[in-house]
Amino acid sequence: MLGRINHIALAVPDLAAAVERYRSSLGATVSEPQALPEHGVTVVFVQFDNSKVELLEPLGEKSTIAGFLTKNPDGGMHHICYEVTDILAARDHLKGAGARVLGDGNPKIGAHGNPVLFLHPKDFFGTLIELEEVK
Amino acid sequence: MLGRINHIALAVPDLAAAVERYRSSLGATVSEPQALPEHGVTVVFVQFDNSKVELLEPLGEKSTIAGFLTKNPDGGMHHICYEVTDILAARDHLKGAGARVLGDGNPKIGAHGNPVLFLHPKDFFGTLIELEEVK
Repeated sequence: MLGRINHIALAVPDLAAAVERYRSSLGATVSEPQALPEHGVTVVFVQFDNSKVELLEPLGEKSTIAGFLTKNPDGGMHHICYEVTDILAARDHLKGAGARVLGDGNPKIGAHGNPVLFLHPKDFFGTLIELEEVK
Repeated sequence: MLGRINHIALAVPDLAAAVERYRSSLGATVSEPQALPEHGVTVVFVQFDNSKVELLEPLGEKSTIAGFLTKNPDGGMHHICYEVTDILAARDHLKGAGARVLGDGNPKIGAHGNPVLFLHPKDFFGTLIELEEVK
């Protein structure tokens, strides 16, 4: 059901400092920052040969990652995003298997302009899973 | 300097239950369990089209992930592993950039039989980074 690992998201308290570290210390290729007010984050993608790391900084009052950074002030690993070809079929299969979908259960549009959903971390051993529909 | 994302490691309290969930709910392809006593873990690899997820369960008294699971009893995202072609050159570059290498600073042999090193999460915004030499 799952295809590629689209990205691994890391929450950071200071995006500019994280970008600088990934560029200079790790020699990585980093995208320009992209504000996603509806998700409450500013994102940057770090490109690797086979997948991406997404660095997330809180944006606005209702950021979805504010609570995570309160618990993990240094930052940390936030979620993993898998690609699916049909997000509604994947959602229905997972709900049938007892997994909970966060929010109202309907996909939103994510950082790549594709529909995305999040699954409850309690149903996947503490890991927050994002599904992204990529045709 | 970094090439592919080799794997993303998730610590789980019950490997058999996690394997069952990744197989049945997510429809993923999962390897046989592999005991790595010198790392204090039993590992299973979940294969995706472009990379792998490594599920880790503690093994023995001195497991390196026991403390993590005490803090995160449900499990959670533990580390991310990047491939490098020359692990000693990568280590020396990173040390020069102020990053700390865990342990005695010398590579050990990891789950794939290749030399691996871990970098201090405080130097990478709370994310534990493994480097694996893949020629």
